[in-house]
Amino acid sequence: MNLPGEFYLSVGGSLETTNQSMEIRCPYDGRLVGRAPVAGIQHVNQALQAAEEIFPVFSEWPLHRRASLLEKTALLLENEEHIFAGLIALEAAKPYPLALTEVRRAILGLRTAAAECLRPPAEWMRLDWNTVGENMEGILHRFPRGIVLAISPFNFPLNLAVHKIAPALAVGCPVIAKPASVTPLTLLHFGRLMVKAGWPPGTFSILNMPSSLAEQCAGDPRVAVISFTGSELVGWQLKEKFPRKKVILELGGNAGAFISSSADVEEALRSCLPAAFNYCGQVCIHLQRLFVAREHFPKVADAFVEYASRLTPTPPDHPDCSYSCMISESEAIRVETWVQEALTEGAIALTPLRRQGPVLSPVVLTKVRKGQKVMDEEAFGPVVCLEPVESFCEGLHRLNDTRFGLQAALFTNNLNEMNTFFRKVRAGNLLINRAPGFRVDPMPYGGIKQSGWGLEGIRYAMRSYTEERFCIKPFQ
Amino acid sequence: MNLPGEFYLSVGGSLETTNQSMEIRCPYDGRLVGRAPVAGIQHVNQALQAAEEIFPVFSEWPLHRRASLLEKTALLLENEEHIFAGLIALEAAKPYPLALTEVRRAILGLRTAAAECLRPPAEWMRLDWNTVGENMEGILHRFPRGIVLAISPFNFPLNLAVHKIAPALAVGCPVIAKPASVTPLTLLHFGRLMVKAGWPPGTFSILNMPSSLAEQCAGDPRVAVISFTGSELVGWQLKEKFPRKKVILELGGNAGAFISSSADVEEALRSCLPAAFNYCGQVCIHLQRLFVAREHFPKVADAFVEYASRLTPTPPDHPDCSYSCMISESEAIRVETWVQEALTEGAIALTPLRRQGPVLSPVVLTKVRKGQKVMDEEAFGPVVCLEPVESFCEGLHRLNDTRFGLQAALFTNNLNEMNTFFRKVRAGNLLINRAPGFRVDPMPYGGIKQSGWGLEGIRYAMRSYTEERFCIKPFQ
Amino acid sequence: MNLPGEFYLSVGGSLETTNQSMEIRCPYDGRLVGRAPVAGIQHVNQALQAAEEIFPVFSEWPLHRRASLLEKTALLLENEEHIFAGLIALEAAKPYPLALTEVRRAILGLRTAAAECLRPPAEWMRLDWNTVGENMEGILHRFPRGIVLAISPFNFPLNLAVHKIAPALAVGCPVIAKPASVTPLTLLHFGRLMVKAGWPPGTFSILNMPSSLAEQCAGDPRVAVISFTGSELVGWQLKEKFPRKKVILELGGNAGAFISSSADVEEALRSCLPAAFNYCGQVCIHLQRLFVAREHFPKVADAFVEYASRLTPTPPDHPDCSYSCMISESEAIRVETWVQEALTEGAIALTPLRRQGPVLSPVVLTKVRKGQKVMDEEAFGPVVCLEPVESFCEGLHRLNDTRFGLQAALFTNNLNEMNTFFRKVRAGNLLINRAPGFRVDPMPYGGIKQSGWGLEGIRYAMRSYTEERFCIKPFQ
Amino acid sequence: MNLPGEFYLSVGGSLETTNQSMEIRCPYDGRLVGRAPVAGIQHVNQALQAAEEIFPVFSEWPLHRRASLLEKTALLLENEEHIFAGLIALEAAKPYPLALTEVRRAILGLRTAAAECLRPPAEWMRLDWNTVGENMEGILHRFPRGIVLAISPFNFPLNLAVHKIAPALAVGCPVIAKPASVTPLTLLHFGRLMVKAGWPPGTFSILNMPSSLAEQCAGDPRVAVISFTGSELVGWQLKEKFPRKKVILELGGNAGAFISSSADVEEALRSCLPAAFNYCGQVCIHLQRLFVAREHFPKVADAFVEYASRLTPTPPDHPDCSYSCMISESEAIRVETWVQEALTEGAIALTPLRRQGPVLSPVVLTKVRKGQKVMDEEAFGPVVCLEPVESFCEGLHRLNDTRFGLQAALFTNNLNEMNTFFRKVRAGNLLINRAPGFRVDPMPYGGIKQSGWGLEGIRYAMRSYTEERFCIKPFQ
Repeated sequence: MNLPGEFYLSVGGSLETTNQSMEIRCPYDGRLVGRAPVAGIQHVNQALQAAEEIFPVFSEWPLHRRASLLEKTALLLENEEHIFAGLIALEAAKPYPLALTEVRRAILGLRTAAAECLRPPAEWMRLDWNTVGENMEGILHRFPRGIVLAISPFNFPLNLAVHKIAPALAVGCPVIAKPASVTPLTLLHFGRLMVKAGWPPGTFSILNMPSSLAEQCAGDPRVAVISFTGSELVGWQLKEKFPRKKVILELGGNAGAFISSSADVEEALRSCLPAAFNYCGQVCIHLQRLFVAREHFPKVADAFVEYASRLTPTPPDHPDCSYSCMISESEAIRVETWVQEALTEGAIALTPLRRQGPVLSPVVLTKVRKGQKVMDEEAFGPVVCLEPVESFCEGLHRLNDTRFGLQAALFTNNLNEMNTFFRKVRAGNLLINRAPGFRVDPMPYGGIKQSGWGLEGIRYAMRSYTEERFCIKPFQ
Repeated sequence: MNLPGEFYLSVGGSLETTNQSMEIRCPYDGRLVGRAPVAGIQHVNQALQAAEEIFPVFSEWPLHRRASLLEKTALLLENEEHIFAGLIALEAAKPYPLALTEVRRAILGLRTAAAECLRPPAEWMRLDWNTVGENMEGILHRFPRGIVLAISPFNFPLNLAVHKIAPALAVGCPVIAKPASVTPLTLLHFGRLMVKAGWPPGTFSILNMPSSLAEQCAGDPRVAVISFTGSELVGWQLKEKFPRKKVILELGGNAGAFISSSADVEEALRSCLPAAFNYCGQVCIHLQRLFVAREHFPKVADAFVEYASRLTPTPPDHPDCSYSCMISESEAIRVETWVQEALTEGAIALTPLRRQGPVLSPVVLTKVRKGQKVMDEEAFGPVVCLEPVESFCEGLHRLNDTRFGLQAALFTNNLNEMNTFFRKVRAGNLLINRAPGFRVDPMPYGGIKQSGWGLEGIRYAMRSYTEERFCIKPFQ
Repeated sequence: MNLPGEFYLSVGGSLETTNQSMEIRCPYDGRLVGRAPVAGIQHVNQALQAAEEIFPVFSEWPLHRRASLLEKTALLLENEEHIFAGLIALEAAKPYPLALTEVRRAILGLRTAAAECLRPPAEWMRLDWNTVGENMEGILHRFPRGIVLAISPFNFPLNLAVHKIAPALAVGCPVIAKPASVTPLTLLHFGRLMVKAGWPPGTFSILNMPSSLAEQCAGDPRVAVISFTGSELVGWQLKEKFPRKKVILELGGNAGAFISSSADVEEALRSCLPAAFNYCGQVCIHLQRLFVAREHFPKVADAFVEYASRLTPTPPDHPDCSYSCMISESEAIRVETWVQEALTEGAIALTPLRRQGPVLSPVVLTKVRKGQKVMDEEAFGPVVCLEPVESFCEGLHRLNDTRFGLQAALFTNNLNEMNTFFRKVRAGNLLINRAPGFRVDPMPYGGIKQSGWGLEGIRYAMRSYTEERFCIKPFQ
Repeated sequence: MNLPGEFYLSVGGSLETTNQSMEIRCPYDGRLVGRAPVAGIQHVNQALQAAEEIFPVFSEWPLHRRASLLEKTALLLENEEHIFAGLIALEAAKPYPLALTEVRRAILGLRTAAAECLRPPAEWMRLDWNTVGENMEGILHRFPRGIVLAISPFNFPLNLAVHKIAPALAVGCPVIAKPASVTPLTLLHFGRLMVKAGWPPGTFSILNMPSSLAEQCAGDPRVAVISFTGSELVGWQLKEKFPRKKVILELGGNAGAFISSSADVEEALRSCLPAAFNYCGQVCIHLQRLFVAREHFPKVADAFVEYASRLTPTPPDHPDCSYSCMISESEAIRVETWVQEALTEGAIALTPLRRQGPVLSPVVLTKVRKGQKVMDEEAFGPVVCLEPVESFCEGLHRLNDTRFGLQAALFTNNLNEMNTFFRKVRAGNLLINRAPGFRVDPMPYGGIKQSGWGLEGIRYAMRSYTEERFCIKPFQ
């Protein structure tokens, strides 16, 4: 793999280096991946000013121009997919095959944005519902709100940023993207590719900046939209702080699944096993809670133990890597501590709990109770709680018994069970016969309850970034 | 007119009187209209508990049942339209013909909700955009969020409450409505009619309660949605206080219109003259700022002066009343003071400024400048600022030069001007050849900028009161 | 029941008697129900001329006016529902409870049309997909095509006519309706109600006329749309004859259902038993072919035999009538003959085959083979073929093995079976866990293969009666 | 330009030569462009059989697979755009720049199909509008109808075929395309590119065959859809002959435009001048009738004469060619004759009428009357009738006074005129401030009146090639 040697901020379209920079090292083995320049207030101001200048022009571009640039960006990314996958693998310690998948999902996102861009939605209606409205009609159009601040997390350094950047550009909003501090390189390199694609100055900036500076930027009156993917706490604080701005929050969860007695257990396992441990569970829709009809429990538990035992940590950039380490030792310690707390209080580990630095072995727990962090909080680690249930009702109840609501899944072959699940379980995504973790990028995606606010998924993010104005005119 | 002799709270479906009550008197002449019982914390709790109990059942009612009750409510209201119009006229000092119009709009709103109820929106999509999504499909459904707290203002005591109650019931959300403290009788009487229609206990409550209690209710975890129509200040405070709830704000504005040189001036006047002074300008989309192409200015000014001179205050319940008084003397004094401030600073009144108690004569001003309250703030009184402009550009610029964004209008017969207006002016409703104040109730309605958050208009309020869940299943 | 004493043609809005008339007698006992005037060419011409004159005006009416008249028509029909049900019961020999249901369905159809009327569909799009389309946008609007000729069958004398009349009026098409010659009274009486509702001259005509005259009318250049419900042969001939007109055909079928081994048999029987014999099977989606997983066959056969044995013919206007006679003796003989043919060739009757005049007892057959009329053709009588099948595949295959494609049903509780059925079976309506015969009037309804052309169901008929014009304009 | 040396039939995916072939020569100078193999009945049968075999599989492909192949086809075409443009220029005598535009439009069409493919439409509805429908819901899905026979005309040898091929493949219908006999080479070469893209055997065939054979193919029971672009006569005959098949007709017209007195004449001319003479008027939406407000007539007439005088015929493959010859001498003679007839009867030619072989100079006529072929019939040649009109009403009336209804245009800057035009003029496409000839390929396109049946434009053709089935299931 031929990784880029240098990384730049994209500031209103120009690539810049800075005095200040950070070393980014691979969490697995400490290898230096690159040096990331760090943006200061002057870069933020420069980015905001360029964005503000281009906005009135950019928002009125012919649609084919925005579509072509999105297409071109997708094409350039396709040409460099291995470079991007390599960067992700190294800086995020993400197994290479998953990193490559991430890049391909970002390509699909860009292509989807190119297509959606040409089909802005609008609702037309006649107004002659009474005499007042005679001879009048209206169209509800959507107009870009203005500058989007896109804050993305470490676990999908490219794709979760593209989920904000692509729809923003598709509707004509300039965007300022802030990568996670621990994994900034991928997105910085993507900025270079954006410049190469020909996005004009001001349409985008990519600023590796401290959170405090991002928050200052969020408060700038020129920023209209804050799209944040990250922790529950920070997310809701942002929403509280900026009540007059559009804030979209994609926060965490403790996604659950329920294998009902009517399910095809083999099929369920094919989907659930990787969902629990992929990328060490550092995925907001990682399968953390698995409820299993009592009759299937032994088989499921055995399968998990066996699967976990086969996950051997390897360097993330190895082409066949299927399991590596967590993003940092401190994160691994946090998860380890949560697990130990549960064990102390009566939970049982079906797998040995082993940690070496940031490498945490996969943990299969059972007899975990509500009130314990590995059950109630977002674990964001390679931990899954397997719990037998006695009835369909109990299964649904336990799925629902959480303050989160991102994804929930039911394995069943029964029509009635499917219908009941859809009507009674409260989560942004409800899945039949696929484990949490399932996401096709153009689909609507977002949490309810404490898991978030507003939808992503290219078309849906485009809605969030635009405001509705109802245009009324005579038609006769 | 045969007005009801007694008024009751509707508390979770039962009609109740209270120890505490308020005298409601007609602002015009102090006549007693009725005594309004005042709700206390126990009523709020009772309402919340009943609502919470019915919610799981009500939200799963067959649609035809909700539709029938909405239809029936409309029919009952139609039968009593003169009683309701009389109540509105007296307690809100609204000219009787306008009060009757308000009742009919509420009837249309209920009928629209009955129809919309049967057509819940949903978006279906296939998910096989890549190999991950093969054989999968999803539907984005909307589910009722829970209890809606509906806070409505004094100026449309019936219709602005129905704009919240009808869509809530249409989607299966129980609703607790709080009328304005100065005009509670109409809505309290509507509660009686709802009981008669057969809405079961818990589906709705109508509580005349102090603002502090309403705010306490808003904070109750059982309340999922706060729909507020009222003042800018209070509205945004609510949104800030409850960042994790769905808050819809319909706030004020200083709506403007621009008569361009290509306009048909006669047509423009037909629409603008009443828009400036209807109900003493106590309408959130009252025409407050009128920009006129220089060449048309003299004609327009003359017409306004002449029209204003013909508006003679009469008791609001007179069947031909076209102009009455403001909601209170203090409000009349506030507007008078604002006008005087502007006059002191150089504005010119084209009509005599006269006030007697709550009766304020219509005021036509010119040479008002930005920075003066009658231009910048929401006047909510019978005041209009007429200002000549020198070019189409200037007209658009001045329309836009406000922190509000509820309605804006352009009078033109020119296609290019229309298009430019639609693209450049930022308001929730953009009108061609109709003055601000135009509203057909089923249409999308809501302010942008500081004028509000979210849309009303039956179908659009229904969207706000529901949350999206994406239901994913195999299709093969 | 107080039936009307006289019947009139509605000719361009005026009620007319004629020299020529027909006696309409109840098929069950020969009672005289009324005398139906018969229209001649002069009535057709008068109707066409009035329709042509009103069309340009009617098509541009404000929508609320059309909606109100539709609402009012529904209300009037509601007030007379027992009169209409009585008429239907007598002239069509339809059991009174079913006749009343038909009237209520017609009321729902009118109400649905009133609501749909206000929401004409339109698709807006920007055209700047390339440089040619820069600054251009378009809306695809629907305009009424012109006069609709509505030809309806005997079995639903009111509702199947309303399915054409209501949508025609909703979109602004004048309509000329021809009832079936054997059951014209109900629709003629409906014409009187339309006049009472206030539909202006020309908007509708109801002409009891011979088929040859109807065909002549169909060929008149002023007729734009032919909407026909009736026999396969006549329908396709019409379509062939008028290739430049819009022709909608709702023809027959031999609807089938399949009770798979995973089904809830009790639930399936609750739905299938009446579906086979309701109104002596004189329903285009009558359950004619029932395939049953071998294991459930004995239970199903027993239930059918038992159910059939309890159906005792009574006069149709008896309030509790559940089974009466066929529309005519000749029809009863036709069905009897078809059954006998099958028996001769090896089929087995599980019930005694009895006929007395037009009264034919319910017939449950088995071992019927393809090639026999009761299997292959539309029986339109109280006959059901019960056939055991050995596998899910076989069941689907036999459902599909017909030249018709109106409705097909699967009883299952299995998700995969449902999906396979939806993808592999070809019929206009595909039903899970409801027998053929299921129809909610606003839903899309129409046959494919040889069963028809185009959709009905209020909204869908409205689409058929309108043509699309794409209106393109600059937007900048 | 490097044109291909050999051409093949694509027969069910394999490239084949035949014994029989035709020489294709450039109409301008008789140069040999290539030899086109001619298909016989055996090729048709082979194509049909392959199509029938692949259909069940192809129709159930994951969508991303169809989308990728469409994308890939677009990319390959982009790479060969000059080869295709050269072929079109030579075989169709189309000026090279227009030929290149055609290729780029075909690329856009393929890309649009790739995007649309992933978004099949469906309408979901709840069915609990009455007690019958409780707990039931339905989705109206679209399923591919089967094999599409695509017959395209000579004037857009590539793009009008792609308008049928791309949507067919996008929805999963195998397609058999027949190019025009005089210009088959482009499409035959496109078949080679399709093979290269990887479309599997049976999904498409491209058969250069005589019309009689195409008609025989149309009648084959395996063909479900006939999509025909060509002459009025042949089109309607096809529809008449196959009443049980889906037939889409894109026929001719005598498109008109009207420059009203409020119009910007310069802008109108910029659009109208090329629209009259582009590709010698051999475009179905060629501007044939131009009505001009009397006051603008002299200016418009002068501009046309001047413009026509500058059009010098050159070889079509010259990179700057702006005018060449007609498709054949006989066609040029036909147009010449029509013009002469009109002149004989009083029309006046503002330009000299000159013909040399297939080269016909541009003809500007005036004082042409209704009844004369150049006014009433589809001229399909470089002829425009300029007629002054006295009022807006007259202009609209004359636009409408034709049996055709493909495109009509109004030049105006007046809002009321625009609205009246949209409501009163009857054509499939109604244009404001753009001349007929305007087409952005993804937009809905199709004639009404005698100009056609059904819509094209990728998404709209996809609708035509699919049938609706309403899938009903319980939801509780």
